[in-house]
Amino acid sequence: MRITFDELVKVFAEKLEKRGVPREDALLAGQILAQNSLDGIYSHGVNRFPRLVSYIDKGYIDPKAKAEKVASFGAYEQWDGHLALGMVSAKIAMDRAIEIAKQYGIGLVAIRNTNHWMRGGYYGWQAADQGMIGICWTNTQPNMPAWGAKDRRIGNNPFVMAVPRKNGEHIVLDSAMSQFSYGKIEMTKFEGKQLPVPGGFDEEGNMTTDPGAIEKTWRVLPVGYWKGSGMSILLDLVAAILAGGNTVTDIGKMTSDEYGLSQVLIAIDPERFNAPGFTEEAINRVIEDVTSSVPATEGKAVRYPGQNSLATRRKNLEEGIPVLDNIWEQISAL
Amino acid sequence: MRITFDELVKVFAEKLEKRGVPREDALLAGQILAQNSLDGIYSHGVNRFPRLVSYIDKGYIDPKAKAEKVASFGAYEQWDGHLALGMVSAKIAMDRAIEIAKQYGIGLVAIRNTNHWMRGGYYGWQAADQGMIGICWTNTQPNMPAWGAKDRRIGNNPFVMAVPRKNGEHIVLDSAMSQFSYGKIEMTKFEGKQLPVPGGFDEEGNMTTDPGAIEKTWRVLPVGYWKGSGMSILLDLVAAILAGGNTVTDIGKMTSDEYGLSQVLIAIDPERFNAPGFTEEAINRVIEDVTSSVPATEGKAVRYPGQNSLATRRKNLEEGIPVLDNIWEQISAL
Repeated sequence: MRITFDELVKVFAEKLEKRGVPREDALLAGQILAQNSLDGIYSHGVNRFPRLVSYIDKGYIDPKAKAEKVASFGAYEQWDGHLALGMVSAKIAMDRAIEIAKQYGIGLVAIRNTNHWMRGGYYGWQAADQGMIGICWTNTQPNMPAWGAKDRRIGNNPFVMAVPRKNGEHIVLDSAMSQFSYGKIEMTKFEGKQLPVPGGFDEEGNMTTDPGAIEKTWRVLPVGYWKGSGMSILLDLVAAILAGGNTVTDIGKMTSDEYGLSQVLIAIDPERFNAPGFTEEAINRVIEDVTSSVPATEGKAVRYPGQNSLATRRKNLEEGIPVLDNIWEQISAL
Repeated sequence: MRITFDELVKVFAEKLEKRGVPREDALLAGQILAQNSLDGIYSHGVNRFPRLVSYIDKGYIDPKAKAEKVASFGAYEQWDGHLALGMVSAKIAMDRAIEIAKQYGIGLVAIRNTNHWMRGGYYGWQAADQGMIGICWTNTQPNMPAWGAKDRRIGNNPFVMAVPRKNGEHIVLDSAMSQFSYGKIEMTKFEGKQLPVPGGFDEEGNMTTDPGAIEKTWRVLPVGYWKGSGMSILLDLVAAILAGGNTVTDIGKMTSDEYGLSQVLIAIDPERFNAPGFTEEAINRVIEDVTSSVPATEGKAVRYPGQNSLATRRKNLEEGIPVLDNIWEQISAL
């Protein structure tokens, strides 16, 4: 079935209010989840909603809590999420980073004791919509082996960078440090397909594109092998240190679920010093150059980061957001 | 042969002075190049010196120029490198970012019209040696195809993150957005070996570990395929915009060589708000956890980013820095 953006927001907000989330936060959380679905990231929108609600029920998310500034010095602030809804806190934190950037050119908010922000790209689009460069990342529970290891001790720690364009066609990268998400591996197995490139190791220790073999080990591959493994470790350390919060190691010791995360949200004013038009022209030169590359597969144009989200958004705005029947039943019953 | 750190610095500085570099800058450049060699990054130390000097001779590097602040607002400064020696300017820029971070918690210096900084990791170690988190990146000439493309229109845009430890055993990631450097591919071919994982495409468009086949196309692989390709584009855009400088696209239109780059150098004070010991303990918990992972290959311990550089540094300090005879002859003749 297809459901409109407004209907999704309404239902999400109602269900969250029923769990004790104040009306204003429930609406904001609903809007973020609906936007993620609108942009085609169903895994961190509508499909994730039942699990999100279960985290309230399990006490990982405090429905009534509010993120709070605990320390401030110049352009760097430290916040405590108090285990409130992660999307709401991340949105507030990026809004604050943008305010700081207006005052100091750059603003950094690091937040501890926060929860899953769902889709990191949302906060990149958020910064770009306000004319800002956005850079943000989160740590996660341990869900990936370090390079050279068998057991999962590092996080996939999604990393986001966004560059604004005045026409709203922002350039937004949203990249976890694992080559594929668990969801993608499971869906590929369900469809009886192979991954397009190796995504992990089988039980014999060989790299494989077979999602079923990877599911048996959950020894998933970091992006670029040793490189993504290293970047995951640094992203975790920097987030936990700046937030004064939990590391991936700490999170792994708490439960088998994922809460109490550390995140960094940075905004930078891209037009502070540049001549009028410089920023827009520089972006367009690069995007035109890259998207007119000689395609590796004839007829298949090279795309820029964020292009697919925007195309899906336009389609879903027109036709409604596709929602799986069984997911909608689960949500309706909450 | 093996040459001491001090001897390397002396020879580099002499040769640079002969090309018109003022004594102070020549010494600093020599120290950076010698340090890169000491840490085992010979490709961006001693082995690169003849090419560096040729860039002065070709006029890409202005030996007498000095990087200069052109604009400043709060914690964000824009600098012009005036095509001075890239290592000297990057060092100055990171020093300035650290000063700003002491004042505002975070400091960002973006520099345009600068030159190759040799090894990005140097500036990460530099920040960490002063107790700061360092994050920096550079753009490059177009040297890699975007994902889905055949021709090289994006840069490998090295990205660096560093976290300080009081004992000097900093955690430092220095990662280009290509899976392998050109130098690594050429060296692997020279040794008659295969790359450990696919590094590019052969003439038939298949991914391959054969360095000879990749040399025929120079269609090298981005880290994590579409992910590193996207990150390369964002790193380039953000650097060029914040510096008001050239993009990878612009650099590719200038010459077939590489100059006039854009770079971002960020420092953040990790202990601004944290309880005493928090930072150190958080780092140690993660590093101990990750390095005690179950190894994929028995007896082969999992390492953290920066660990190899430190081990090589200690060995080379004791035994001297290994230098190829023919490279030393070339340098001596300059």
